[in-house]
Amino acid sequence: MKNHVYKLIELTGTSSTSIEHAVETAIKRANQTIKHLGWFQVIETRGNITKGKIDHWQVTIKVGFTVEK
Amino acid sequence: MKNHVYKLIELTGTSSTSIEHAVETAIKRANQTIKHLGWFQVIETRGNITKGKIDHWQVTIKVGFTVEK
Amino acid sequence: MKNHVYKLIELTGTSSTSIEHAVETAIKRANQTIKHLGWFQVIETRGNITKGKIDHWQVTIKVGFTVEK
Amino acid sequence: MKNHVYKLIELTGTSSTSIEHAVETAIKRANQTIKHLGWFQVIETRGNITKGKIDHWQVTIKVGFTVEK
Amino acid sequence: MKNHVYKLIELTGTSSTSIEHAVETAIKRANQTIKHLGWFQVIETRGNITKGKIDHWQVTIKVGFTVEK
Amino acid sequence: MKNHVYKLIELTGTSSTSIEHAVETAIKRANQTIKHLGWFQVIETRGNITKGKIDHWQVTIKVGFTVEK
Amino acid sequence: MKNHVYKLIELTGTSSTSIEHAVETAIKRANQTIKHLGWFQVIETRGNITKGKIDHWQVTIKVGFTVEK
Amino acid sequence: MKNHVYKLIELTGTSSTSIEHAVETAIKRANQTIKHLGWFQVIETRGNITKGKIDHWQVTIKVGFTVEK
Amino acid sequence: MKNHVYKLIELTGTSSTSIEHAVETAIKRANQTIKHLGWFQVIETRGNITKGKIDHWQVTIKVGFTVEK
Amino acid sequence: MKNHVYKLIELTGTSSTSIEHAVETAIKRANQTIKHLGWFQVIETRGNITKGKIDHWQVTIKVGFTVEK
Amino acid sequence: MKNHVYKLIELTGTSSTSIEHAVETAIKRANQTIKHLGWFQVIETRGNITKGKIDHWQVTIKVGFTVEK
Amino acid sequence: MKNHVYKLIELTGTSSTSIEHAVETAIKRANQTIKHLGWFQVIETRGNITKGKIDHWQVTIKVGFTVEK
Repeated sequence: MKNHVYKLIELTGTSSTSIEHAVETAIKRANQTIKHLGWFQVIETRGNITKGKIDHWQVTIKVGFTVEK
Repeated sequence: MKNHVYKLIELTGTSSTSIEHAVETAIKRANQTIKHLGWFQVIETRGNITKGKIDHWQVTIKVGFTVEK
Repeated sequence: MKNHVYKLIELTGTSSTSIEHAVETAIKRANQTIKHLGWFQVIETRGNITKGKIDHWQVTIKVGFTVEK
Repeated sequence: MKNHVYKLIELTGTSSTSIEHAVETAIKRANQTIKHLGWFQVIETRGNITKGKIDHWQVTIKVGFTVEK
Repeated sequence: MKNHVYKLIELTGTSSTSIEHAVETAIKRANQTIKHLGWFQVIETRGNITKGKIDHWQVTIKVGFTVEK
Repeated sequence: MKNHVYKLIELTGTSSTSIEHAVETAIKRANQTIKHLGWFQVIETRGNITKGKIDHWQVTIKVGFTVEK
Repeated sequence: MKNHVYKLIELTGTSSTSIEHAVETAIKRANQTIKHLGWFQVIETRGNITKGKIDHWQVTIKVGFTVEK
Repeated sequence: MKNHVYKLIELTGTSSTSIEHAVETAIKRANQTIKHLGWFQVIETRGNITKGKIDHWQVTIKVGFTVEK
Repeated sequence: MKNHVYKLIELTGTSSTSIEHAVETAIKRANQTIKHLGWFQVIETRGNITKGKIDHWQVTIKVGFTVEK
Repeated sequence: MKNHVYKLIELTGTSSTSIEHAVETAIKRANQTIKHLGWFQVIETRGNITKGKIDHWQVTIKVGFTVEK
Repeated sequence: MKNHVYKLIELTGTSSTSIEHAVETAIKRANQTIKHLGWFQVIETRGNITKGKIDHWQVTIKVGFTVEK
Repeated sequence: MKNHVYKLIELTGTSSTSIEHAVETAIKRANQTIKHLGWFQVIETRGNITKGKIDHWQVTIKVGFTVEK
């Protein structure tokens, strides 16, 4: 891990079921276009309410990945 | 959504099972007396421990709703 | 101002024109039902984008007012 | 304490003598209209100066109480 | 809005006239290359002073947009 | 609860399944060596990604317990 | 810009019209006694309410300037 | 003070009378088992309410002390 | 209060007895050289421990005062 | 600098020697693909420990650069 | 790394030469009594001034290590 | 140290070589006009990039010093 450089991007994943699933949704999408995803950090957990019930969770994460040389 | 005004209140929901359920508990209660609930944001996640096990989760949220004109 | 008590509530005002106007919208509405509004503090400034343009500003403020004895 | 819901409100109590007294002033007032006050948290400690001396302390607290079902 | 994923990027817009115009400048530029801009949040408001006067406002925002599947 | 003293320590629990399970893992371990665990607060939620999927959740909590006299 | 030193001071400017004008008021006053003002950063935006209307905006800024050798 | 190392621990002291007394309670207890206590910093001030009155103050502090070589 | 400008400075007052007295000490000293002190805000509460007891409280405040035209 | 727009990205640079070198590593890599890098801000300083010694520093920075029109 | 638990402690290392050396001093000391040190995070960088010069740097870090089962 | 009062000012020191040198630059300058400098705290670490390289580090510190009676 000598002198590696990582980039962090911010994504909001959504899910109608759970916080974990919202995070997975964001990471799954990131994995389609970014190689070497390494870690994530939850930044904010919000959600939308429709007719008095949680419609979907909105979880914002920072995702870190290795920048190729 | 021209010139609407929203109010935000802070609630702590509890649950013996999960963070999501604690949030649902708070929103369900808010919905009994407040119309037009729109969104929420998780502010703090705490919990109580009894005999070395989590007894219940305490999740504090801000809930936003439309103020009628 | 001996032993006065104040309450702070959180409101989000909206406006299609400016931050100042969004704050005024929230205070104007608060003034319809609350006497003795005293001060406010801007908590968050957000906005909605439609077709690449700012549709409306959403400014969240805390408003403080005297609680009558 | 199964599935209880609590509400948190923000109050500023004032006192010419001490921080503790300013908090007591706010809680005493809250107790006139709210049942089941449970806990508080100090958010901010400010004060007013008149002729070079502290005129009164202004302590902002969050007060939590049980929301009846 | 089932399982959508959003990306947030950070931009600093500048303007010699107002905070609102600095934000518009950043969003206008983002709209040239990004589809589906949805919302923004003001992160920081700074400015440059030349000869004792504000030369330009520098407003940093986070802009959120839908990531296509 | 007169003049009790509590200590708070910081632990990171991990789990391949959920945030709640990661917290339970940390508390279960703390309970092996500490009596009178009383409460916890979630400080940070992170995770590790392997081959584009969440490998394990890393949840950092503060745990409070009574210090015996 | 080799080894320059800058000082930052905190000022609150007020205005009955806008946030921008409140900042200008503070900078204009600083410029009467300080040379080489370089930049500012908005720290807090508050205001006073009289009879249900914004009486004046109170914008606190940090102002940075070059310290002469 | 060349190359000294200090450790910081987090304690919550309680008192039915004042914030200062709650801090003293925590430090008095720490002093029973830790030598070379050096300084403290107040992290959070909370309290418990019983029958509409403050039952006890809960003040969380970080306490720093010299780690012997 | 039209277009007034205020300056805020940061002071640490000390006291062997209480937080309130430490703040008073700082304000009393500020009043010797600054006219028109208006308000203060507590920023940080720390203290020094000698032989297992609080030797003195160190309370850092921001003090605001009117800048004359 | 009229109406310029800047973008900020977040990078983590690593180094086995110093904080400064970790920042340089990140900026050097950014410079390979981004023109007009203008400034950076240190967000977080962490590190990895192997066999009781610092193996490498991990410094996260925000880097700002001009977005071409 | 299945279901591991980590503990984080807070240390202040000092050095008359550099921030990096102050961190090393703290980690070196921790390594004398704690096995499996894994990572650290810089929390605060302060220093002492004697006769107008930096006498020593005081760098506070959180150090994380594996808790054995 | 009975009832001493300290003042804190904010300075940005710059250096083309290191964070430590930037801090020293600020303290050296402060020492030309202020007696009894006591301590400092690093508030922010930024820097300027020219032609893809760090041109100078900009480190903002708070410096505390004794206010004479």
